[in-house]
Amino acid sequence: MKKTVAVIGATGVAGQQFLAALPGHPLFEVVALAASPRSAGKRYRDALTDQSGAVRWYCQEPLHPDFAALEVEDAARFDGARVDLVFTAVESEAAAELEPRYAKTTPVVSTASAFRYEADVPIFIPGVNLDHDRLIAVQKKQRGWKGFVTPVPNCTTTGLAMTLKPLYDAFGIRQVIMTSLQACSGAGRTPGVMSLDIIDNVVPYIPKEEEKVEKETQKILGRVMGETIEPAAFPVSATCTRVPVLEAHTEAVYVSMERAASVDDVTQAMRSFGQDFVALGLPSAPSRLIDVSDDPFRPQPRLDRDREGGMLTAAGRLRRDHALPNGVKYVLVSHNTKMGAAKGAMLVAEYLAMQGHI
Amino acid sequence: MKKTVAVIGATGVAGQQFLAALPGHPLFEVVALAASPRSAGKRYRDALTDQSGAVRWYCQEPLHPDFAALEVEDAARFDGARVDLVFTAVESEAAAELEPRYAKTTPVVSTASAFRYEADVPIFIPGVNLDHDRLIAVQKKQRGWKGFVTPVPNCTTTGLAMTLKPLYDAFGIRQVIMTSLQACSGAGRTPGVMSLDIIDNVVPYIPKEEEKVEKETQKILGRVMGETIEPAAFPVSATCTRVPVLEAHTEAVYVSMERAASVDDVTQAMRSFGQDFVALGLPSAPSRLIDVSDDPFRPQPRLDRDREGGMLTAAGRLRRDHALPNGVKYVLVSHNTKMGAAKGAMLVAEYLAMQGHI
Amino acid sequence: MKKTVAVIGATGVAGQQFLAALPGHPLFEVVALAASPRSAGKRYRDALTDQSGAVRWYCQEPLHPDFAALEVEDAARFDGARVDLVFTAVESEAAAELEPRYAKTTPVVSTASAFRYEADVPIFIPGVNLDHDRLIAVQKKQRGWKGFVTPVPNCTTTGLAMTLKPLYDAFGIRQVIMTSLQACSGAGRTPGVMSLDIIDNVVPYIPKEEEKVEKETQKILGRVMGETIEPAAFPVSATCTRVPVLEAHTEAVYVSMERAASVDDVTQAMRSFGQDFVALGLPSAPSRLIDVSDDPFRPQPRLDRDREGGMLTAAGRLRRDHALPNGVKYVLVSHNTKMGAAKGAMLVAEYLAMQGHI
Amino acid sequence: MKKTVAVIGATGVAGQQFLAALPGHPLFEVVALAASPRSAGKRYRDALTDQSGAVRWYCQEPLHPDFAALEVEDAARFDGARVDLVFTAVESEAAAELEPRYAKTTPVVSTASAFRYEADVPIFIPGVNLDHDRLIAVQKKQRGWKGFVTPVPNCTTTGLAMTLKPLYDAFGIRQVIMTSLQACSGAGRTPGVMSLDIIDNVVPYIPKEEEKVEKETQKILGRVMGETIEPAAFPVSATCTRVPVLEAHTEAVYVSMERAASVDDVTQAMRSFGQDFVALGLPSAPSRLIDVSDDPFRPQPRLDRDREGGMLTAAGRLRRDHALPNGVKYVLVSHNTKMGAAKGAMLVAEYLAMQGHI
Repeated sequence: MKKTVAVIGATGVAGQQFLAALPGHPLFEVVALAASPRSAGKRYRDALTDQSGAVRWYCQEPLHPDFAALEVEDAARFDGARVDLVFTAVESEAAAELEPRYAKTTPVVSTASAFRYEADVPIFIPGVNLDHDRLIAVQKKQRGWKGFVTPVPNCTTTGLAMTLKPLYDAFGIRQVIMTSLQACSGAGRTPGVMSLDIIDNVVPYIPKEEEKVEKETQKILGRVMGETIEPAAFPVSATCTRVPVLEAHTEAVYVSMERAASVDDVTQAMRSFGQDFVALGLPSAPSRLIDVSDDPFRPQPRLDRDREGGMLTAAGRLRRDHALPNGVKYVLVSHNTKMGAAKGAMLVAEYLAMQGHI
Repeated sequence: MKKTVAVIGATGVAGQQFLAALPGHPLFEVVALAASPRSAGKRYRDALTDQSGAVRWYCQEPLHPDFAALEVEDAARFDGARVDLVFTAVESEAAAELEPRYAKTTPVVSTASAFRYEADVPIFIPGVNLDHDRLIAVQKKQRGWKGFVTPVPNCTTTGLAMTLKPLYDAFGIRQVIMTSLQACSGAGRTPGVMSLDIIDNVVPYIPKEEEKVEKETQKILGRVMGETIEPAAFPVSATCTRVPVLEAHTEAVYVSMERAASVDDVTQAMRSFGQDFVALGLPSAPSRLIDVSDDPFRPQPRLDRDREGGMLTAAGRLRRDHALPNGVKYVLVSHNTKMGAAKGAMLVAEYLAMQGHI
Repeated sequence: MKKTVAVIGATGVAGQQFLAALPGHPLFEVVALAASPRSAGKRYRDALTDQSGAVRWYCQEPLHPDFAALEVEDAARFDGARVDLVFTAVESEAAAELEPRYAKTTPVVSTASAFRYEADVPIFIPGVNLDHDRLIAVQKKQRGWKGFVTPVPNCTTTGLAMTLKPLYDAFGIRQVIMTSLQACSGAGRTPGVMSLDIIDNVVPYIPKEEEKVEKETQKILGRVMGETIEPAAFPVSATCTRVPVLEAHTEAVYVSMERAASVDDVTQAMRSFGQDFVALGLPSAPSRLIDVSDDPFRPQPRLDRDREGGMLTAAGRLRRDHALPNGVKYVLVSHNTKMGAAKGAMLVAEYLAMQGHI
Repeated sequence: MKKTVAVIGATGVAGQQFLAALPGHPLFEVVALAASPRSAGKRYRDALTDQSGAVRWYCQEPLHPDFAALEVEDAARFDGARVDLVFTAVESEAAAELEPRYAKTTPVVSTASAFRYEADVPIFIPGVNLDHDRLIAVQKKQRGWKGFVTPVPNCTTTGLAMTLKPLYDAFGIRQVIMTSLQACSGAGRTPGVMSLDIIDNVVPYIPKEEEKVEKETQKILGRVMGETIEPAAFPVSATCTRVPVLEAHTEAVYVSMERAASVDDVTQAMRSFGQDFVALGLPSAPSRLIDVSDDPFRPQPRLDRDREGGMLTAAGRLRRDHALPNGVKYVLVSHNTKMGAAKGAMLVAEYLAMQGHI
């Protein structure tokens, strides 16, 4: 018996990525789609169609005809109790209103930021901090909910925290500096990134992005202490930029570690990371979490983003950093709308279902 | 009376930039062009024409008809003594052979890296370290040359050293971390960056670039001590990437300073930097060396690269960095083929001419 | 004494292009800016600033501080009688409402399509059909206006009609086929072309564009007959596509002529076109209307769009077409937001002012 | 028993595409790779590695380790008799020399143009003109070869001839006009299309391309008459341009037909085309040859190129053309390095093997 699932915010880029990943899913069956009142009452395909007749479906995977024909419901009126699980992919403001309603009765796995910084809410990355699931019981109890809300992080945090975790565990971390070169899809579709702004250009600022990355990374690598999470102590400093790339964020990372380690040791720590998690055999899991390339020209977003269904974090250029104590530096590529959003959330949900939380 | 000038390596991207900037120059008059034997004997325009008939002139400025009609000479046979000044814009290997020959009789201002790391050779950036010109006498004496060789730095170093200099002078520097997002023109034209490699992509590695940036920055910010330069002591760590941008390098910089300073103080130090130099009124000089924008979305390479004829370093996003002691971080845009190459070399030459070195 | 001018729709891409071209204009002085109620009451610079703080000014020319500080008025309440001339750069629906109001008292030169297909309204292209100005008196009389409305054509029509006119006059035209490769700026800014839609892609459809090009070309090359324009009889067939180019439309044109003509004759007809118009010395006029390149790799939008201030139509690849009777084919590049929009409208207005219509 | 196969020109873009498609092929087994002397003697992976260490493998499919380890042979010394079939993917000049040598003993299926215009050589497109295989016996007899040479067309011809064929058969064709918007991969890798030439740009000329398209289309749609092919009589006029797209050519096509036909009839003719061929069930065949979209925004190269493994020709925007007698016009997208090159050649070879020619 599959779990029944609703996708809220189904018309946006992140919502579409949920629907691109759900056809034929062994655990989850989509039974409802919801979005803003503007889309409510239309068939999903019609809701994606703009005034000029273009179907604004952005995924490479085709739109499944079953989903195309579903009637979109009004998210504000959707009753979470109708399903076993709610995926939300809406803007933060909408999530702040909608997610508590659904969570009264139903587990909510979200790509929105609204609840990420609440004391009783874990921000899950698969294979990194799923032990933070101990907070779910706390959250239910404190809020009097039968369900709960667990967001995934900002898409730029995902690859960073994923690659820092094995270093943190093995060698400790003192400080982290990161510059991102982010894909256009991260900005969504309304309005998204205009071509006039990004062709032959770099935009050196993405509002609120750096603060999210800095704070979320510390929380994700933190420890559950009683009824909350004590964030990791090391500071993170980020500069987030937009580049003319369709999908996948590239990040140049500099880490000062607590203990000295050779490049080989750090490479080995990354490569062997997450084997236990991968061994669970969850449907959306990659065969390994992190690849470290020896080719100095890799990773590249266009060449590496679709490996393992967009669920692999591709690292490379791992080398000593001489400006920081016990410093290493590397480059990573992480698919922002796969592992960094909907498919990452789905993998989280698969884990939570396996653990009996859903 | 203008100084007579030869441009060596005239057919490459950097050589073309010299020619784009020289028409009507008040101090310099081009009397000879030279390149490889393959181009020798052809008129310059013909030498730029490929087998399919395309004229491979890459500058926005039109090719001046006087230069188009000049016969290209063989660089290996060119006699430097025929001119007052030689601009070289050739690959490093060729420069290693050619520049000492010319320098026996004639001053050589170069965009090549061949001599940058020699003890008696200053790497000039206009307004930053022109006092290193004291080494010119040392170089002449030690090598028995009537002329000399003074290279400009790698194009990625230019913006970095330019913006670090006012911080170094005012507050001291402990360590520097920099990630670059470099334009395609930096790779020249043979073969340059292939469209298949860079459309919808980032290439996270540029061979030898990071080492150059790290070493050159220290030397440029160093002090003349006797017959050589003592490099600045702070470490520089760089990650150099290529992005789908035609012109101008973007750099995200993180600086740990010796002394604490407010964002306002640092901004002020950058904005007021180089006033004495600018006051000299040299023909290719911008009206100020560094602009610091308050608009968080600036600088952008497409919007800021052509300001002040490509000779301005555009900075922005200046803010505290909490991961480094006394940390500040910012983003800069510097035109890699204008101030970062030929026009920067020309401005150096203007200064050297004014000082009587040429 | 300069004519006083209002720019309506000042915040859009076309409106900005008017403002980019008007500083220091010898004939026109901007005294009012107007836009939608959302912008009304704000200073112009603030009206361009989006919620994230970005100033959405899209022109390469800097925003003139005088305009930045002007208060934007509500276009619906703007009284045309306050100025000598109104430039409108609004969407078609808004133009249908606003332009007749202004025209009651004041000449209106417009980039909008609302009135293009009215019997008593000429669609002006500078140097091509300014003799259609005889319709202005008809329009005033029929509508009882003191002013009038004269739109410029769709930006894709401009280069096509410009290059067809000399062929039509010299050799006659039987039929025209044209495929366009249009720049992203043609779609404006709200929402414009999304980067997700156009990077590494071509979009083969632009709603309503082909019909406009086909109909407008016939009207522009038509003759004033009594109180209307009899359109040229030859059919025009267009396919309009969007490509990842920022500015300037490229068009591949195939023409079947009434009379046979050599490639040299056709080239000559284009090159010598418009000399009388150019000789008028209007402020925004280029030194010639059409250039025909012999380099087979030209025209290119990035290299040719800014020649003569974006007011030159660059043609090339002129050769025989063997599929059509008396066939010739060529490629043209025309700057869609300069000659094809605001600056073209300004040049029209300069002519109309010279003729005493304004 | 699989047929043994050699790939000549294995290091180029087209050669790589052969290798991307051959792993696990049910009929063909690669036993030899050959290229220029520069690559000879190296392992294939090393031969692809440039001086900076980058592995210049351009296919999305990974490089199969078996191929990576194969030693590249010198094409000039390769003995065709060692294999059952030779795929050649070299430049035309090299093909002119090499292919006759191999063909003395062995069938050669080629992507090169060297033999396309010989009287006894058919240019095959799968499903379009495979009945031209009657010329193979003629060719063998006339040249005294045991093998033969059959090239596939220029990649721009493929989609055009594919979509014209059903119209030609059903309604007759009088004349064809076509403008292409071609991908960068069509120019290969040495030097290919430079990023400096194509970012934010269109290049309106591809040397020799238009002549190829015009001539090949007529030959492919011609009839075998005795010992040669009588080309189709209708003229074809092409303008071939390059756009900033990685893969897949877009073409805007205008056709004047002998007999009037409705848009529905033409659509139906395209959609039902090639069913017999597809029914053969050849390993590389798509499930249908041509799709005609009703969505006016399709086809788009990025969205449609990979459908059916790059073997589908995606058409759309099918509508009446009023400039030509019995005119229709449409847009097509065809994958230039899949169906338009190596995979198309492979599908041809599969057919020839089935027919006993190999």
